[in-house]
Order: sequence, then C-alpha cells, then structure tokens
Amino acid sequence: MKIGGKQYRAIWPGDDLDCVEVIDQTRLPHELRIVRLGSAEECAAAIRDMVVRGAPLIGAAAAYGIALAVRADPSDASIARASALLLETRPTAINLRWALERMKETLRGLTPAKRADEARELAGRIADEEAAACRAMGNLGAGIVREAWERCGKTRPVRILTHCNAGWLATVDWGTALAPVYVAQEQGIPVHVWVDETRPRNQGMLTAWELGQQGVPHAIVVDNAGGHLMQKGLVDLCIVGTDRTTSRGDVCNKIGTYLKALAAHDNDVPFYVACPTSSIDWTLDDGLASIPIEQRDEAEVTHIGGIGPGGDLVRVRIAPVGSPAHNCGFDVTPGRLVTALITERGVCPASKDGLRHLFGRAS
Amino acid sequence: MKIGGKQYRAIWPGDDLDCVEVIDQTRLPHELRIVRLGSAEECAAAIRDMVVRGAPLIGAAAAYGIALAVRADPSDASIARASALLLETRPTAINLRWALERMKETLRGLTPAKRADEARELAGRIADEEAAACRAMGNLGAGIVREAWERCGKTRPVRILTHCNAGWLATVDWGTALAPVYVAQEQGIPVHVWVDETRPRNQGMLTAWELGQQGVPHAIVVDNAGGHLMQKGLVDLCIVGTDRTTSRGDVCNKIGTYLKALAAHDNDVPFYVACPTSSIDWTLDDGLASIPIEQRDEAEVTHIGGIGPGGDLVRVRIAPVGSPAHNCGFDVTPGRLVTALITERGVCPASKDGLRHLFGRAS
Repeated sequence: MKIGGKQYRAIWPGDDLDCVEVIDQTRLPHELRIVRLGSAEECAAAIRDMVVRGAPLIGAAAAYGIALAVRADPSDASIARASALLLETRPTAINLRWALERMKETLRGLTPAKRADEARELAGRIADEEAAACRAMGNLGAGIVREAWERCGKTRPVRILTHCNAGWLATVDWGTALAPVYVAQEQGIPVHVWVDETRPRNQGMLTAWELGQQGVPHAIVVDNAGGHLMQKGLVDLCIVGTDRTTSRGDVCNKIGTYLKALAAHDNDVPFYVACPTSSIDWTLDDGLASIPIEQRDEAEVTHIGGIGPGGDLVRVRIAPVGSPAHNCGFDVTPGRLVTALITERGVCPASKDGLRHLFGRAS
Repeated sequence: MKIGGKQYRAIWPGDDLDCVEVIDQTRLPHELRIVRLGSAEECAAAIRDMVVRGAPLIGAAAAYGIALAVRADPSDASIARASALLLETRPTAINLRWALERMKETLRGLTPAKRADEARELAGRIADEEAAACRAMGNLGAGIVREAWERCGKTRPVRILTHCNAGWLATVDWGTALAPVYVAQEQGIPVHVWVDETRPRNQGMLTAWELGQQGVPHAIVVDNAGGHLMQKGLVDLCIVGTDRTTSRGDVCNKIGTYLKALAAHDNDVPFYVACPTSSIDWTLDDGLASIPIEQRDEAEVTHIGGIGPGGDLVRVRIAPVGSPAHNCGFDVTPGRLVTALITERGVCPASKDGLRHLFGRAS
C-alpha cells in the first residue's frame, strides 16, 4: 500500500542478502523510519518490542529471522536456537508458530549447504502468500461491504467499525480487516471507518494513519464509543482481525474485541473476523480456556507517547504515582458472537462445522 | 475524604461570603490546586471546562453559582440569567437542572433582600444533602459488597470494577459508586478495585488517585480490559455512577458504561448503579431515544496530558495529523442490563415498577 503516494510493504528483503527491512511501527504514526534487521536476534527483538506487530507480519518476520540465522550458520542447532528465540517473543498469535514450523519442516529435509537459499526464498514466499491471502480476503470482504451499500440504497457510505490495526502494516500488504475496505474503495464503494483508538498501545492510530494515506474517510473514536455508535445506528458492520482462531471459531484478538462483539450482537450489527488460514489453530477448541493471553508491562497503561509542544516524540505519565496497572493484551470472542469468518478460501460460520466444511477437514 | 491524611470535600464555601472553593480536577491526579470561584460566570466556566465534574458535584457547583449571582444582584433577572448560563454548560447530567430548579423555586418566594442569605444556605444544604445521600448509598452498597465477600467464604478481597470517577471528587463527599467501597473498607471488608482508565478524559486516574489516598487496593486497566477480566472470573461485581436515570431505569453514564454492562450480563456478574435521587429524571422513559448526549471537542481524543520527562504537565498529540475524531461523552445502559439501582432510599430494580415502588409514586 502507499505512504505519501509511494508503494510499500511492511517487510521486504534488503538489497544485499544479509538483512530484512521493516517499518518501525513504534514510531508511527508520527515518524516513518525504516529499520534493518540483520540477525534472528534482531528479528526477535523487533517482534518483542513491537517494532513489527500484527499476527501475519510477525509470522513473516519470524520466517526471515530463521533465514538470517541459517545464512549465518545452517546447522540444525542454529535453526533450533533461532526458532526457540523467536517463538518465545509473543505467546498469543499463532502465525508465529505456524511460520516457524513451516520453515523448520522444509529446512530439515535439506543438507546445510542448500539451506540458506531455500530459507530466504521460503521466507519471501510466506510473505507473498500472506499478501495474496489478504488480497483474497479483501475481495470476499468487499462483497460484504457492497451488500451493505446496496441495503442502504447506495445513499451513503458504508460505516465500518474496526478495532486495533489489522491493516497492511500488520500483515505485509493489504491487511486482513482493512483489506475489504481498500478493495471496496478500489471498486468505488464509499466507506467511512470508525477507528477504535485501541488502548493501551493505540494501534488505532496506525489504522487512522494507513487510512489517511490511502484517502479513506475515517474518524478516530475512543474504545468506549463503539457501543453507543451501534445503539444509534451509526455502524453498518464491524470487521476485525484475529491473532488466533480455534477450530470451533473462537477468536482471540486485541483486548477489547470481545466488548465490541457483544455490542454488535446486542444491536444486530454484523460482526466479521478477517481470518487468514495462518491464524487458525486446529489443535484448540475452547479459546477462552486454552489460548495463552500475553501479560504486558504495566507502563503501557500508565504512560503514553505522543508529539509534545516542541514537536518531539515524548512519553508522559498519565497515572497517579503509586497506582499499579494490569495489562492483558488480548481477549477471546466466542464464535457465537461472530457473524462469519472471512478467510482467503471463502466466508464461513465461526463454528466447528463452518470451518470443517470450508477446509474439507474430517471431524 | 482524605488527601495526604487531611479531610476535604470537593466543594466548600470560602471563608468570606463572596466565593466558593473547589479542587481543580483538570490538574489531578498530578497536582492538587484549589480554585476560588467568585461569580456565577466563574462557576459556569468551571463546570464547562471540567474543573469541577461529576453529576452531583456540578449540581452543587451550580447551586453555589446561583448564590453568588444573588449576592451580586438579587433580582429575578439576575437569577434567570445565571440559571440560563449554568444550565447550558453540560447537557447530559440531570443534577444540574435539578439543583437550579430547586434554587429558583425557593428564591422565587422571597423578597430580593432576603435572597442572598437563603441562597447561600440552600446551596450549602444541597451540598450537605448530596454528601448524606452518598453516605447512605455507601451503607447500602457495603451490604452488597459484604454479601459478595461472604459468597467467596471471606477467603479473598471482593473485586469490584468501576468506570469513570464516581468517587468523592465527583460528588462533594464519599462518592456514589465508590461510597460502598469506602464504607466496606471502614467495616473491615477487603476490596480490590479494577479502575477503568475511562478515555478520553481518563477520569479513572482520579479514581485511582482517590483510592490511593484512602489506602484502597486497586489496579488501573484500560477500558478494553473489563470484558476479559469478567470472562476470567476476576470481577465479583461492577458499580458505576449515573448522570441521568430515567423513570424506567435506563442509565446514562460516561461513554463505555454500556459495554461493561453487556460484559457483566454475558458473564453473570452483578452490575449495580449508584443512583442518588437527584440523578433521576422522572420526565423521561426511553433513555436511548430521549437523553441528549454531549458531543465534546475532538482534541480530547487526539491529544492527552501527562507528566513529561521534565516533571511538568504537558499535552501530547497521539493521533496522526489530519485524522478527525468523534467524541461523544455518554452512553445509555438499558435498565435490563442493570442488576439494581442503589439509591439513598434503598436498593431497587432498574425498572418502572422498581423505582415507582421505592419512591411511592403513582403510575
């Protein structure tokens, strides 16, 4: 997608073979800074510190991390070490594990001498496939947006609420939840996006920035506002991403997603989850009981960064001294609250049968 | 309640007769600053700029505003002018209108010469009655907290989630939603309060500060977190305040309250509203359709204040340049999601029958 009219992806191989380049998402939306990652260790640090974030993108970054480790040392031990390091960076998103398993499985069958080229190529392929999956979800999701537009007699923009950032920054390209928005725009369907701020890390500001760069009309709202907007009939549909989806369609996504799903359900607003295959964890059933929820630093709640009066990025303390905070990164939305999953293979109910039927799996 | 061990109220008459003093709530939790308000105009500005905030407190501040106007000029025209000015400051909370009506009704029956003393006395009485109502709600609410404590076999603190600040700062003294917490603490019942940050103005930080000053264990959470905490069984009950309650028990309170009520309902967590009589609007039935929702400045969403690296209070921009924001201050929680209303007269169902029975009103 575009930044200042120029085409970008959220991750790309460096011109020489010994690095991968990413956009530093801790500086956005205030500053565009490109960072070179030259080793598995640097990839792991970038994932941990959320320089790169978003379930599909951290999968791709982890794959490149393995490729860089293999380039430095193609031994089994090197791959195992890099994989363990990368895996422990973020516990909730499943794409990370999925990408690492895929890399390891492919490399295991090769002699060390052949591993470096294959690892680099496969990491690129994983990134390309994520982008293609997003585009496919965009095409399917745009059909849903079009139906909403037709339901209102094409008299006004389709008002879509989203939580967090599941845009192109989170996914290599296009985005998961935002791909339908971008494809709808491409098709001439007018949209207006309600952008949840998404405390504590305010990834909604990344969404607002992305949308602004592509010229999509939008407004930022605090996370508290969505229920009221839905009660007032100002939301036609919700679309969010997912960090892990269970085999019965429970969706683990950024903290607060569950609250929006409840409000959508209470107000008969369709609630869609853009769910690439790479985010499905077929080994889990009950999301609430079984998905590990990342506990993060309380300073993310008590402090916040922004542009100060001098034009610099500064960090301010918003909480009173001595008050502790509790910071859980994700919540689980039960499949019963999800209207449908939009996958790159098709749209299906968020249920065991729905997923099984779409993916042709036996019970 | 106490600040640094010293007893305070949120509003009190000045030593001389020509002012009222308040704590500047725009500086909290970072700085304790007392402000003198010397006229109805200054009272109106303090309410509009949220130097004083919280439905019961703005009622008391408006009453003192009338008293100051009457001291300067006791004519009918002066009272009408001051009342109109004060009424238009905040559209949602009903206490403001209630206090102004009560002042006007009493003063109307008096000759101008007698009005100044009576106005000052009545404003003081309104403040005292609010404090007494809060203490009464605290006693009733503490009984509910005690029951929760007994239900868990007195093995751990009762975990209470609250949204916004409905503490003593919002109400003259004790608070509405926090009064049960303070009375429970007085009675030796251990409590732990989950404090919703309450974007965009972060009144949760006032709650955290209040609780810290009274030594009540608590943790700040982002507004997104409450649903997850309830899903995980970490919330025993919710208690919130109200800015306006309709005759059928619909509750208009700070934006985001509705989302927490939905989550409480979905997880069988009791959801109580501390509702002083002064917040009931008997003229309205359907809260969603009829209560005016204040639209506030979008800069409250795009910017935030905090303590910067130099120790000063600074304001930072968190949103990308060019992204608009939408800022609605309140939402309406339908009575069906409210377990009960805690009023100073007793606890009752949030329904037409419940309120009618408690207040002995005919239909």
